[in-house]
Amino acid sequence: MRQSQLFTKTRKEAPKDEVSKNAQLLIRAGFVHKEMAGVYSFLPLGLRVMNRISNIIREEMNLLGAQEVLLTVLQDKNIWVTAGKWDDKVVDNWFKTKLKNETEVGLGYSHEAELTNLLKDYVRSWRDLPLYIYQIQTKFRNESRAKSGIMRGREFLMKDMYSFSRTQEEHASFYEKAKAAYFNVYKRVGIGEQTYITSSSGGSFSKFSDEFQTVTDAGEDVIYVCEKCRQAINDEIFKEVSACPLCDNKDLMKKKAVEVGNIFNLGVNFSEPLDLSFADETSVKKSVIMGCYGIGIGRLMGTVVDVFADEKGIIWPKEIAPFDVHLTPIFDKEGKVKPAADALYADLVSKGISVLYDDRDIRPGEKFADSDLIGIPLRVIMSEKTMAENILEAIDRTTGEVKRVPVSDIERIIK
Amino acid sequence: MRQSQLFTKTRKEAPKDEVSKNAQLLIRAGFVHKEMAGVYSFLPLGLRVMNRISNIIREEMNLLGAQEVLLTVLQDKNIWVTAGKWDDKVVDNWFKTKLKNETEVGLGYSHEAELTNLLKDYVRSWRDLPLYIYQIQTKFRNESRAKSGIMRGREFLMKDMYSFSRTQEEHASFYEKAKAAYFNVYKRVGIGEQTYITSSSGGSFSKFSDEFQTVTDAGEDVIYVCEKCRQAINDEIFKEVSACPLCDNKDLMKKKAVEVGNIFNLGVNFSEPLDLSFADETSVKKSVIMGCYGIGIGRLMGTVVDVFADEKGIIWPKEIAPFDVHLTPIFDKEGKVKPAADALYADLVSKGISVLYDDRDIRPGEKFADSDLIGIPLRVIMSEKTMAENILEAIDRTTGEVKRVPVSDIERIIK
Repeated sequence: MRQSQLFTKTRKEAPKDEVSKNAQLLIRAGFVHKEMAGVYSFLPLGLRVMNRISNIIREEMNLLGAQEVLLTVLQDKNIWVTAGKWDDKVVDNWFKTKLKNETEVGLGYSHEAELTNLLKDYVRSWRDLPLYIYQIQTKFRNESRAKSGIMRGREFLMKDMYSFSRTQEEHASFYEKAKAAYFNVYKRVGIGEQTYITSSSGGSFSKFSDEFQTVTDAGEDVIYVCEKCRQAINDEIFKEVSACPLCDNKDLMKKKAVEVGNIFNLGVNFSEPLDLSFADETSVKKSVIMGCYGIGIGRLMGTVVDVFADEKGIIWPKEIAPFDVHLTPIFDKEGKVKPAADALYADLVSKGISVLYDDRDIRPGEKFADSDLIGIPLRVIMSEKTMAENILEAIDRTTGEVKRVPVSDIERIIK
Repeated sequence: MRQSQLFTKTRKEAPKDEVSKNAQLLIRAGFVHKEMAGVYSFLPLGLRVMNRISNIIREEMNLLGAQEVLLTVLQDKNIWVTAGKWDDKVVDNWFKTKLKNETEVGLGYSHEAELTNLLKDYVRSWRDLPLYIYQIQTKFRNESRAKSGIMRGREFLMKDMYSFSRTQEEHASFYEKAKAAYFNVYKRVGIGEQTYITSSSGGSFSKFSDEFQTVTDAGEDVIYVCEKCRQAINDEIFKEVSACPLCDNKDLMKKKAVEVGNIFNLGVNFSEPLDLSFADETSVKKSVIMGCYGIGIGRLMGTVVDVFADEKGIIWPKEIAPFDVHLTPIFDKEGKVKPAADALYADLVSKGISVLYDDRDIRPGEKFADSDLIGIPLRVIMSEKTMAENILEAIDRTTGEVKRVPVSDIERIIK
C-alpha cells in the first residue's frame, strides 16, 4: 500500500486520557482510534494485525478439529436465566437492552449458554460427540473501570472455543491438546518465550483453571514462575501453595505479567441446567462435559506491543506485522529515485510481498521516525547513493542493524 | 470436510414460527440457527458462504481504492446528538444501553457519525481527500417486526462504505464507480441478471438514492423495470413519474423484488454538524461531501436462496457455495468403495478443491436428499458400479444432468 493513500497519519501525542502504553503507541501510530474508555476502532494498519492474529488462531483451532461458527451478540434472557447467569449479582458485567416490545435481551459477554442451547438441536447420542466449536466475535463487558487501553475492553474481539465431551477422560485429553495449541499460537505471534501456563482460580465457572500469562513490565498481574518447568502460579494460588505445582520447587521468580488466554473446565455447569445431554452406548442419559478456551485478540495485540516496543515505537514480530516490509526511499531533487522506488514497489507486490511504500515527499528523518513508530520489522531504503552502488539498505527494526543488499537479493532477505 | 464431523445435521422441519422461505431452508440445511426473531447464528456451512460473499465484496471495494476498518458497535451518544440522529423520534430503531456509570450509549445501526467524527483526527487539507473507507461489521436495528428470516434482522452483518469528497463532481464520479462495483458484486455472487438499479426516495439521509433490487417472487418490494435500460423505479417513485428515468419509456414491467444494496448521497448532512471540513487550495474552509454505500451480507445470502432454490432445497452459485463439490459415495457391503472415496477426497483436497465428503454410513437416498437440501452446485458419486467402469458421476444440482467422467478428468470438471 502507498502510504500517501493511507488515511491515518502518525501523531506526536496520544489523547491525554489514554494512560496505557500500548494504546498510546497504537493510537499515535494510527492502528486504533479510541471511541470511549475500553472501546476502540481498528484502523487499516490495526485491522491488518488483528486479521493476521485471527488467522493464526483459526489455523491452530482448525488443527484441533474445531469447527468455526458465528454466534450472536444479542442474547436470549430465558437461556441465561435457566443457566443461572442472568442476574447482575451473579454476572456483574452484563450490558442489557430491550426490544421494542420491552423484552429484555443481553449483549454476549461470553457464549456458553447460547451454544449449549443451540447444540440441543444437534446432540442426541454418544455418536454426536465429542464436539469442539469456536468463533471469533465481538464480546461486550460492562467494566466499571476500563483503563488498560485495548487490554480490558468494554467491546473487544475474542476467540472463544467450547468443548463438548462424553467423559472426564475425553475432556481431559482435549484440554491438554488445547493447551498445546495455545502455546503454538503464542509462539507464532512471537511471545512464546515470555508466556507461561499459570494455575489460577476458576473465576465464575469452575474452581481451578489455567491462564496463559506473558511476562512484561507493563503487566497488571503478578505471577510466580518455576523456570525449570516453565510453569507459573498466580498471586491467589501463591498465597495458598507457594510452590511449583509440577515439581514442588519453592524457588519461584516473581514477575509482572499479562493474561493472554485462559481455559476453564466447565463440567456440567451449563449442560445440566440447560439439559444438553446424550444417550451413551447403553442408552443411559448423561450430561455433556464442557470446557471453554478464550483468547482476547485485541489484548494479545496490546501485549505484543508492550513486550517489544522501545522508546522509538512499536516493533511487530514478523508473523503479525501489518506489512512484510516498509519501503522508505530517500527522494532526490532530480527525481531519479522516485521511479526506481515505484518499480521496486510494483515488483515486490507482484511477488506476493506486502509492502507499505512511503511514497510521500517529506524529509527522510520524518519517514524514518514514522517507520520506527509503526514498527514493521524490516525497513528497506533506496536512495541516490544506494542506486549508484546497485544495492538496497535493509534495516532491522529491533537491532537497528543495516545490511547492504544487492537489489537482486532483496526478495530473499525479506522472506 | 468430512460430513460425519460436521456438527449440524439436516432437519425435516424448520421451527414453526419461521415463515420466511429462505430462513426455513437455511435452518433445515444447517446453515443458520434462529436465536430470536431477526437474530441468527451462522453455523459452519453458513459462515463459509458469508465469508465467500464478504471476500467478493472486499475485493471489489479494494479495487475502488477503499480502505478497510473495523468501527465499534458501542456508539458515543454525544456524537449522534451533534449529528441530530440520537432522538428515537428521528431514528426509530436504536438499541440503547448504559455503562455502569449510567452513561447512555447506542449500538451502531449505521456508522456515518462515528466515522465522520473519527476522520477529524486525519483530515485537514484538500490533500487528505478524497477518502473511501469501509467495514464489514455487525449492525443492530431495533425492528418492531422482524419476520423476514435473515432478510430484515435485528442483528446482521453489513458492508458499509463511506466516501469523503471535496466537490460534487468528485463525489458524483466516485458514486458512479461504486455503482459499477456493486454490479460486479451481484454478478459475482450469481444474481447479476436478476438485479436492477432502482431509483427510490432517500430514506432518512437524502432526498433521492439508488437501490439495487433483485427480482424474485419472494420479494416484499415492488419495482417497475425498463428492460431496455435495465433500470427500475420503486413503487413510491412510480406513483410520481411512472416512466423510465433514463429513456422515458412508459412500458414498465411490474415485478416483485428484494433490496440487496443501496447507495445514498449524504451531502454535508453529517460533515456540517460534526464539523468535518478541509482547507481547499485557496485555504477556504469547506465541509466534506459524503456518500454511503451499504450491502447487507445476510440479506444477500437470503436473496440468493430465494432466487435459486427449488422444491428439493437450496442451490448455491459456484462462487459462493460452501464447498466446491459434494462427494457422496454409495458404500458397498464388501467395503471397497470407502477406501477409494477416502483416497479421492484426500486427492481433491490436496489439489486445493474444497470438498464436503459424505462419509456417513447411511442410505444413498438420504445422502442425496441431504445433498439436494444443502445445495452445493456439483455432486460427485462413486459406487461399485462407477469403480468397475473407472468413472465418476458428476451431477449438476440445478439441472440434475448426470455426466459420466473418467476419474482422471474430475479435477477439470470441478474447476
